[in-house]
Amino acid sequence: MFRERLVQDAARIQNHFDLVLGALDDLDITHAMAYATCGGKRLRGFLVLESARMHGVGPAQAIWPATGIEALHAYSLVHDDLPCMDNDEMRRGRPTVHVKWDDGTAVLAGDALQTLAFELCTNAEVGTGEIRAEMALTLAKASGAQGMVLGQALDIAAETAASPLTLEEITRLQAGKTGALIDWSVCAGARLAHADTGPLRQYAQALGLAFQIADDILDIEGDAELAGKRLQKDTQAGKATFVSHLGLDAAKSRAAELVDQACSALDGYGTQAETLKDAARFVIARDS
Amino acid sequence: MFRERLVQDAARIQNHFDLVLGALDDLDITHAMAYATCGGKRLRGFLVLESARMHGVGPAQAIWPATGIEALHAYSLVHDDLPCMDNDEMRRGRPTVHVKWDDGTAVLAGDALQTLAFELCTNAEVGTGEIRAEMALTLAKASGAQGMVLGQALDIAAETAASPLTLEEITRLQAGKTGALIDWSVCAGARLAHADTGPLRQYAQALGLAFQIADDILDIEGDAELAGKRLQKDTQAGKATFVSHLGLDAAKSRAAELVDQACSALDGYGTQAETLKDAARFVIARDS
Repeated sequence: MFRERLVQDAARIQNHFDLVLGALDDLDITHAMAYATCGGKRLRGFLVLESARMHGVGPAQAIWPATGIEALHAYSLVHDDLPCMDNDEMRRGRPTVHVKWDDGTAVLAGDALQTLAFELCTNAEVGTGEIRAEMALTLAKASGAQGMVLGQALDIAAETAASPLTLEEITRLQAGKTGALIDWSVCAGARLAHADTGPLRQYAQALGLAFQIADDILDIEGDAELAGKRLQKDTQAGKATFVSHLGLDAAKSRAAELVDQACSALDGYGTQAETLKDAARFVIARDS
Repeated sequence: MFRERLVQDAARIQNHFDLVLGALDDLDITHAMAYATCGGKRLRGFLVLESARMHGVGPAQAIWPATGIEALHAYSLVHDDLPCMDNDEMRRGRPTVHVKWDDGTAVLAGDALQTLAFELCTNAEVGTGEIRAEMALTLAKASGAQGMVLGQALDIAAETAASPLTLEEITRLQAGKTGALIDWSVCAGARLAHADTGPLRQYAQALGLAFQIADDILDIEGDAELAGKRLQKDTQAGKATFVSHLGLDAAKSRAAELVDQACSALDGYGTQAETLKDAARFVIARDS
């Protein structure tokens, strides 16, 4: 059920991107925007659509923030890959935006994708003014200098730090870098329905941490071809990770434990939560 | 009256930035964010505060979008100055962010400033959900791939175009690059009060064009020290501008004509509009 939904929702999000981006001028940056939003698992968008379904909110409404969070994720990847940041040449099995075009186009396309994320989340179809405003405000908090960008900045600061990060510092870094957007995506359904975000938040926090530990494991054990990107970056850079602190086996157990915690948090939803529970199990079993 | 208000409002915006940015982590990117938002005329923020006053909306509410539009403007300057974009080393009389720190810090600080703009515009103090959502949605439209970034992309495309831009193409480029944010700022007051944006929009469109013609004149006649940035860039790059099309004298007449049009659009506001009318006159008389 989960894998089918993930594939269906990915197609839905692609259609919505085609619609929205197809209306723009025919320019390098708009082509780069379409290129950057193409492919990937669309896990964040799926989490929005699925948590919305659990609250009786259909895809006609939820597709806007689902596409919005994918636009935001795409912007972060385009800028992350720049030579002055991580300097990556491959992403999702294809050349990165600055390789295919140039650095200036990558900066501008990323900028416009961030803007697009806020435009999509405040579209009139999303709901009442209150809901639209909260979608945008919470997205800003999750992605800015107290969320995702904070995580990225801590990551950069760690490269020149005198001593490797502690487990607590890595946890804070990752809570920003990947956790905050996963949290936002998972809670989006409850926000669209004006419902309590409590249980979803507990699920999201365990899921986000499990996701990052799985990423660290993938960085060591993964196949670069399947992953579609350069691997073993952290090991080569001598960076402290969950795996370098805990060891491979303990990291795997910890991730499995977190997935159990994530699933338990949703017990109150009954069978409605089965797909999200499967999603949590998938996160630590994925190969890309 | 106008100059006093501009100075007062600039101080008000600085205080608000101090408050908001002071709450962030002590990191290079947060220092770079504060540095990038420091100084400048704060014309856009002033336009928000002043148009709000004209509609009976006080600074306690209007300071949020006023600071928001200045955060957005600051992000656009930080990214514009990057070596892969305009490659400028001076801005507001000081080294640009990537010169003072590095390119990666400039990319991230700009990203976080864009996010901050949306966070400020959707703050609970801004008004009802409907107002907050509309502030964010209209800001996204004004600044993204159909607004400011479109203007920047057209500007980059013009550099490699076979023939120089026509006057109509320059007008469209500038309507995006500088006009859209000026339009948003001027209309903000009416939006905060749920009032008709019609007259303000007419004012803004004439003002935005006058502003850009004045910029082209400044690029030729200005003093780089007073302007605090490199000048004669367009002439050196052989770019088509309003001045290269119209000649210096006709460009000046056209700018003056547009300022008259801008002022007339506000006649319905009576004496309430005096400060905005002065602002329009200032725009073509400024030296920076």
